[in-house]
Amino acid sequence: MKNSKHSTKLWGGRFQKRTSSLVENFTQSLDYDRYLYLQDIAGSVAHARMLASCGVISTQESSAIIDGLGKIRQEIEDDEFKWSVEFEDVHMNIEKRLTELIGPVGQKLHTGRSRNDQVALDFRMFVAESLASWQKEISSLIHVLVHQASSNLSTILPGYTHLQPAQPVSLAHHLLAYVQMFKRDYERTDDALKRVRISPLGAAALAGTTYPLDQEMTAREVGFDSVYENSMDAVSDRDFVMESLFVSCMIMTHLSRLAEEIIIWSNPGFGFIKLPEAYSTGSSIMPQKKNPDAAELIRGKTGSVLGRLMSLMVTMKALPLTYNRDMQEDKGPFIEAHNTVLGCLQVMAGMVRELGFDAQAMVAALKRGYLNATEMADYLVSKGETFRQAHHIAGKAVAYAENRGAGLEELSIEELKSFSDKISKDIFDCLDYQQAVNRRNFPGGTGPDSVAGQIKRIEDWLNKVQFSP
Amino acid sequence: MKNSKHSTKLWGGRFQKRTSSLVENFTQSLDYDRYLYLQDIAGSVAHARMLASCGVISTQESSAIIDGLGKIRQEIEDDEFKWSVEFEDVHMNIEKRLTELIGPVGQKLHTGRSRNDQVALDFRMFVAESLASWQKEISSLIHVLVHQASSNLSTILPGYTHLQPAQPVSLAHHLLAYVQMFKRDYERTDDALKRVRISPLGAAALAGTTYPLDQEMTAREVGFDSVYENSMDAVSDRDFVMESLFVSCMIMTHLSRLAEEIIIWSNPGFGFIKLPEAYSTGSSIMPQKKNPDAAELIRGKTGSVLGRLMSLMVTMKALPLTYNRDMQEDKGPFIEAHNTVLGCLQVMAGMVRELGFDAQAMVAALKRGYLNATEMADYLVSKGETFRQAHHIAGKAVAYAENRGAGLEELSIEELKSFSDKISKDIFDCLDYQQAVNRRNFPGGTGPDSVAGQIKRIEDWLNKVQFSP
Amino acid sequence: MKNSKHSTKLWGGRFQKRTSSLVENFTQSLDYDRYLYLQDIAGSVAHARMLASCGVISTQESSAIIDGLGKIRQEIEDDEFKWSVEFEDVHMNIEKRLTELIGPVGQKLHTGRSRNDQVALDFRMFVAESLASWQKEISSLIHVLVHQASSNLSTILPGYTHLQPAQPVSLAHHLLAYVQMFKRDYERTDDALKRVRISPLGAAALAGTTYPLDQEMTAREVGFDSVYENSMDAVSDRDFVMESLFVSCMIMTHLSRLAEEIIIWSNPGFGFIKLPEAYSTGSSIMPQKKNPDAAELIRGKTGSVLGRLMSLMVTMKALPLTYNRDMQEDKGPFIEAHNTVLGCLQVMAGMVRELGFDAQAMVAALKRGYLNATEMADYLVSKGETFRQAHHIAGKAVAYAENRGAGLEELSIEELKSFSDKISKDIFDCLDYQQAVNRRNFPGGTGPDSVAGQIKRIEDWLNKVQFSP
Amino acid sequence: MKNSKHSTKLWGGRFQKRTSSLVENFTQSLDYDRYLYLQDIAGSVAHARMLASCGVISTQESSAIIDGLGKIRQEIEDDEFKWSVEFEDVHMNIEKRLTELIGPVGQKLHTGRSRNDQVALDFRMFVAESLASWQKEISSLIHVLVHQASSNLSTILPGYTHLQPAQPVSLAHHLLAYVQMFKRDYERTDDALKRVRISPLGAAALAGTTYPLDQEMTAREVGFDSVYENSMDAVSDRDFVMESLFVSCMIMTHLSRLAEEIIIWSNPGFGFIKLPEAYSTGSSIMPQKKNPDAAELIRGKTGSVLGRLMSLMVTMKALPLTYNRDMQEDKGPFIEAHNTVLGCLQVMAGMVRELGFDAQAMVAALKRGYLNATEMADYLVSKGETFRQAHHIAGKAVAYAENRGAGLEELSIEELKSFSDKISKDIFDCLDYQQAVNRRNFPGGTGPDSVAGQIKRIEDWLNKVQFSP
Repeated sequence: MKNSKHSTKLWGGRFQKRTSSLVENFTQSLDYDRYLYLQDIAGSVAHARMLASCGVISTQESSAIIDGLGKIRQEIEDDEFKWSVEFEDVHMNIEKRLTELIGPVGQKLHTGRSRNDQVALDFRMFVAESLASWQKEISSLIHVLVHQASSNLSTILPGYTHLQPAQPVSLAHHLLAYVQMFKRDYERTDDALKRVRISPLGAAALAGTTYPLDQEMTAREVGFDSVYENSMDAVSDRDFVMESLFVSCMIMTHLSRLAEEIIIWSNPGFGFIKLPEAYSTGSSIMPQKKNPDAAELIRGKTGSVLGRLMSLMVTMKALPLTYNRDMQEDKGPFIEAHNTVLGCLQVMAGMVRELGFDAQAMVAALKRGYLNATEMADYLVSKGETFRQAHHIAGKAVAYAENRGAGLEELSIEELKSFSDKISKDIFDCLDYQQAVNRRNFPGGTGPDSVAGQIKRIEDWLNKVQFSP
Repeated sequence: MKNSKHSTKLWGGRFQKRTSSLVENFTQSLDYDRYLYLQDIAGSVAHARMLASCGVISTQESSAIIDGLGKIRQEIEDDEFKWSVEFEDVHMNIEKRLTELIGPVGQKLHTGRSRNDQVALDFRMFVAESLASWQKEISSLIHVLVHQASSNLSTILPGYTHLQPAQPVSLAHHLLAYVQMFKRDYERTDDALKRVRISPLGAAALAGTTYPLDQEMTAREVGFDSVYENSMDAVSDRDFVMESLFVSCMIMTHLSRLAEEIIIWSNPGFGFIKLPEAYSTGSSIMPQKKNPDAAELIRGKTGSVLGRLMSLMVTMKALPLTYNRDMQEDKGPFIEAHNTVLGCLQVMAGMVRELGFDAQAMVAALKRGYLNATEMADYLVSKGETFRQAHHIAGKAVAYAENRGAGLEELSIEELKSFSDKISKDIFDCLDYQQAVNRRNFPGGTGPDSVAGQIKRIEDWLNKVQFSP
Repeated sequence: MKNSKHSTKLWGGRFQKRTSSLVENFTQSLDYDRYLYLQDIAGSVAHARMLASCGVISTQESSAIIDGLGKIRQEIEDDEFKWSVEFEDVHMNIEKRLTELIGPVGQKLHTGRSRNDQVALDFRMFVAESLASWQKEISSLIHVLVHQASSNLSTILPGYTHLQPAQPVSLAHHLLAYVQMFKRDYERTDDALKRVRISPLGAAALAGTTYPLDQEMTAREVGFDSVYENSMDAVSDRDFVMESLFVSCMIMTHLSRLAEEIIIWSNPGFGFIKLPEAYSTGSSIMPQKKNPDAAELIRGKTGSVLGRLMSLMVTMKALPLTYNRDMQEDKGPFIEAHNTVLGCLQVMAGMVRELGFDAQAMVAALKRGYLNATEMADYLVSKGETFRQAHHIAGKAVAYAENRGAGLEELSIEELKSFSDKISKDIFDCLDYQQAVNRRNFPGGTGPDSVAGQIKRIEDWLNKVQFSP
Repeated sequence: MKNSKHSTKLWGGRFQKRTSSLVENFTQSLDYDRYLYLQDIAGSVAHARMLASCGVISTQESSAIIDGLGKIRQEIEDDEFKWSVEFEDVHMNIEKRLTELIGPVGQKLHTGRSRNDQVALDFRMFVAESLASWQKEISSLIHVLVHQASSNLSTILPGYTHLQPAQPVSLAHHLLAYVQMFKRDYERTDDALKRVRISPLGAAALAGTTYPLDQEMTAREVGFDSVYENSMDAVSDRDFVMESLFVSCMIMTHLSRLAEEIIIWSNPGFGFIKLPEAYSTGSSIMPQKKNPDAAELIRGKTGSVLGRLMSLMVTMKALPLTYNRDMQEDKGPFIEAHNTVLGCLQVMAGMVRELGFDAQAMVAALKRGYLNATEMADYLVSKGETFRQAHHIAGKAVAYAENRGAGLEELSIEELKSFSDKISKDIFDCLDYQQAVNRRNFPGGTGPDSVAGQIKRIEDWLNKVQFSP
């Protein structure tokens, strides 16, 4: 037992001194990678099955290993598993316990495999499952937005550019703009998944295994599409994490834009929405407060997730081949981003489901925003003015009406005629907000037929993705 | 002359005062968007054709517009075009000149279009062309790497993990790891392009046009695949820029890793490569210097491009719908990143093409790195030891040899036997580096058949993408 | 003429081949560092004077060099200087020209100096001057904010938390909050300057000069406070750039918050401010638009500057000692950030100076926001309720009044009493907004004496910093 | 009990519905701010004392509160405190328990205070203590570096630029370059602390308190230097967190550079250092491996910390006044960065303390790097050549020697003379590495007197800061 001081490390042969506990705590990755225990066990089961199928170990050995791993999974889920930072990571903790449970045959699980390809497989499985869970929540959020759109087909509000009232749009059309953003996120996730679901097993430490393994079989067993081309790339590639983090940043960017509108719209100066109480909080000082905390936190957490993408990209910059310990810093950022994105998607879907809209407040905003000025210009064009001239005339009319404190539609026909002799009484039809919306009925526009078409197509898409395997 | 102070702005009707020149300079985007003149003109030509095809303007009007635009293009290319910040951006500069050249009919080009959808179209065209040019350079770089790999099939060097010698690999295999990274970049660019090549024309300012336009036709005319679903999304979506910037960051990350290796390998302590003189510089003080400046700059510029992705993501965070002037800050970051990525890809391809490799220096590094220790462990396993025990024994042998200042293969058979009685003379075959490489011949490994397979498949792929339409 | 192919490089002795023009363009830094010509010349003048003072060169030589440099400065300012990328950077361009103008003595300027310490000096001078110019603009902006505060001492508006109306505050107090932010920026800039104004001259390439130079003298000549301690640090330190970029990010963060409020406040739902026309733009489509473009661009450019900080920090990460070519990427980010910060500070000061405030719109917002609810709670506490109970009662009163569509002050005394029998008629004094403001008159609060004190102290500070040497 | 569904929230008066548990979990900040319990209690004790001193509460009430808070602190430290996410944050959890322990008088602690100024105070105290702990670790690391420098005064190694051997330097000088970086970090932390140690108490929710509080007294009680000027700024300022995060990024940047050198230097091609076993790990596959894991993790964690700065800066961008819930996202990033920086500083100090240096390997690197080429050029200058000409000649000599596979000092006098007839036998003195170092003995250079001066000054400084109060 002369080596007792350092016998616990699997690589201790060359070493004379024990790792200091400061360093042990600093270098361990258990805090994060223990969340990968399911993937580690499933990956090991696949590996054991393949080893037996290739004749590298016997069927009995494979069964013993698989049984042992099942027991370990149960122990972890029953919170009876003893994690130890001394064994550095999830892989070593499980392997050590396996050998305790089933004896030396447990060590055969390591045949043809290294921690470098093992951790890459585990993490790819974890990321793949995370992305799939985002897609599920994205489709739920889209579902809720489409439902609110369908319920608000004829609600009209100001469409804004520069946060200034621009042209009237239907609330349905406004909400469907977000649907398009989240649909892109869904599709971007699909694209990322193609590059996540690639099995690195068989790459071993970096140069490839010396055992005749069936890499395609392990890939199939864990539900992956393909197998790595180059072993050095396989153990040093973290593109799949960065790309997934980027996808999460795009989701958060879209959520932050929607959150910003919820925050602005619930200010009394807008008053467009009534915040669901379950998604707001009050103030310990000010009794009248109803704060859009959930929306603010979603907006605020956007910063956290953007920072996490930056974290990993900085870490990966200029690392030589192949594996470097720096890469251990891939899990913390991703796991935190994953939890944040998932929570934000769920909370946003819940909040949007319960949002109440105040159509009257929206009409009031249309009036004070002169949202029919473009219509007046178009009217003048239809009477023979060039657009530039018509734009000029309508601009002067708005300046006049603003000074008088009235809407364009509230000016008298005499006042209106003073801006152009081409104006006659039929201008009042044109100044009506609903008609302005109806007039934009071509595909993609805010008119009712266009909106109905958008809803139809997105519902078809939802049916397809929600019931796909 | 009553409007002289503010008659130059196309939106001046409501305004009493002229924009200050400080503000004019601050808000203009001409510095960047003048680089989009080709796209602006091509987009306008497509729009004019479509307007005529739909009967919104006459064929003669369309022809006059298209002729005028052709003249303007020529003026710009002959450097005779007078750009003016007073007209804010590329669109207004060109439109103003068009009206000068062909009279009031020039204003009809604006029918059914707003600057909001126009700038989105122009920039999508610019980004699409940029991405295509990256793909071209990526495939050139891959071509060069494959060529170097093919020329170095039997050159062996240490494969590193943690920058410590790990196992011998072939130089071809090492270079092919980078090929896989850049191939992923190529494919990621393809995925991004699906979301770039969507025409926003017809969205007008935000609510959709009131003219019966054929949006599919304009999309086809500019070579795009599809048409926006929602007008508010169409004018406020900058996902396509962020995604393209992310793609550029991934390319730079891969280039930075290769650059790092070139820098390290050209240090005399490694001496693996001889830098091409055309890609290095000397020192004004130190006569012996030959600095890997090109590689260092590529590595350094990685930071610039990462910062540019961050720039736009921060800018887009929490912007309410629809267009906000903040979005003007999309062009600077992208154009700079585009130029950087393109330059770095070209320089890297040129440098790799001319790299000389020093096989003798690589062999020296193999010897001093004990790169056959894993082979010794595998040998012991083949003689009946468990892997863990074999690993332990080999570790002790390395510690011993290091103290003696010798390679494992330079120990006597007696010395070797002192570590395990399972060792006999055949161990020396096993300690040979070339055999270690040959033994890893399964798909993805560093062995010669595996490498030949990788080269074959990538050459097929190159043939496909380089001659695709 | 045997060396003609590579005779132009100052380090060409060891090299056989000419740098390719692709690489020459890629590695040159002239695009950015030509902006440092003034600093390069002033630094060289200081160096020449010191060399003469130490007897390393003669006084005549020093005079010839200084005269030559003066001519070059004139040539550059007259746009007659021929920049050439072949000579890589500003230093070599100037040195080359110097030798043309005054003969071989020009080469003596390089004595005891290397490009590594020379570029560090030039850039430190440039950064120091930039920071000083930011301080000047910051103090101008503070001046304008204080002026607006002084002009709006009795204007009352809602103070917001969570963008929900919270408690009434004076407009002066609100504006003075920004004054505090910008004052911190000023002081942070002072702290950064301590670490910028350190002379690296004498460090030579990295190991220190072999000439008996008077480093203190050069430092004094260029207006710096101190001299580097360690030559290797001196040539590889870019902390001063990163810290200055961070300072610029803080300035932009504060500007972005003020810009956001200007944008929100100019929406008609708020209507608190009337945008100066010179700082807004209209729409080419919508005649009624008056867009806060200048404020939006300031907000948007915040992303650009944050990205630039990130750029350099990524570039500097993990660079070994001492100078690496990556560091050339320090100038682009800083120069762009400098221009942006300077422009944004100027435009913001100009815009704030001309902002018109609408006190009536602010009063309307006070009413609809129940901003006297905290006062009602405080009233109940003064009548003997615990604060928690009082908060509860006032909360119920707000809910009641909101349902009735009235302000708290518009409820009848009977209605008010129904919430607590501790309420009597004197509650109406308490519900008055102006009194609510006056009551918060302790230092730091929104009351008039507190605000007057803040203004007094900041004016004293402004007097001090604006007239300091 | 009619309010039972929502009676638990302190702001529940206006609310009809209970917060959903999804939202409760999403909005709670307990996961992070429970780490602030010490500061929360200390801040409350200071507030209670001040309230009594001002006569707002009685001395008995103050004592009861302070006793109660002491008990709570004990409960937390004994792990007997029941944290509940239902009470949202650390402040409410403690206040709730206080009222349980001492009855309704506990509620009086909230007098003249809001969560907005309370959380700002707590976090400022936490950040101030964190920064002080960084300073302690920085001075320890400097101490270790100085000790290693003092022990390696005459060890010579190549100084690098571009990772190419440039000029010989002493190991002491090289290590002292890092000392300068960390000293700047220490001073930068001092500057940040000036802006952290400002008490926001008295700002209440945003507009200032209505109670006659003694804000100076609370500031003194918690060890702060000054009091906020403006209540709205006081509750919405998070500059102090961003500035502290920036300081942490600079520390990490410097650590990453040192880590990079440790990684490169422990590669066998350099072999400059012998890694302490306690700070390295082995491989489960490769028995010969000794990996610089601790250094790699420090380098990798640099990305994490940079990302955290970015997180908060993105979160704060464009937030309107005053408090917004987004700001809750300040604690996670800071606490994680704090733990990382502290751990990295400790591990680096421990590792540097135990680093062994291999002087022979360094000499070997000097020889193969032609580090005396500059000396040869200087020699030629002393014989009357211009520097540029001398540089040219030495460059040619290096090219010749490299082809011959020899050092400059190993060429024969005839060979040397063939490059210039100004060369004679005394050149061999000049080519000696130690003399090259000695020659650079002016302040800041690598010569022995300069290095001794650097060590003396830093030891004086260490004595000053380590024994300051």
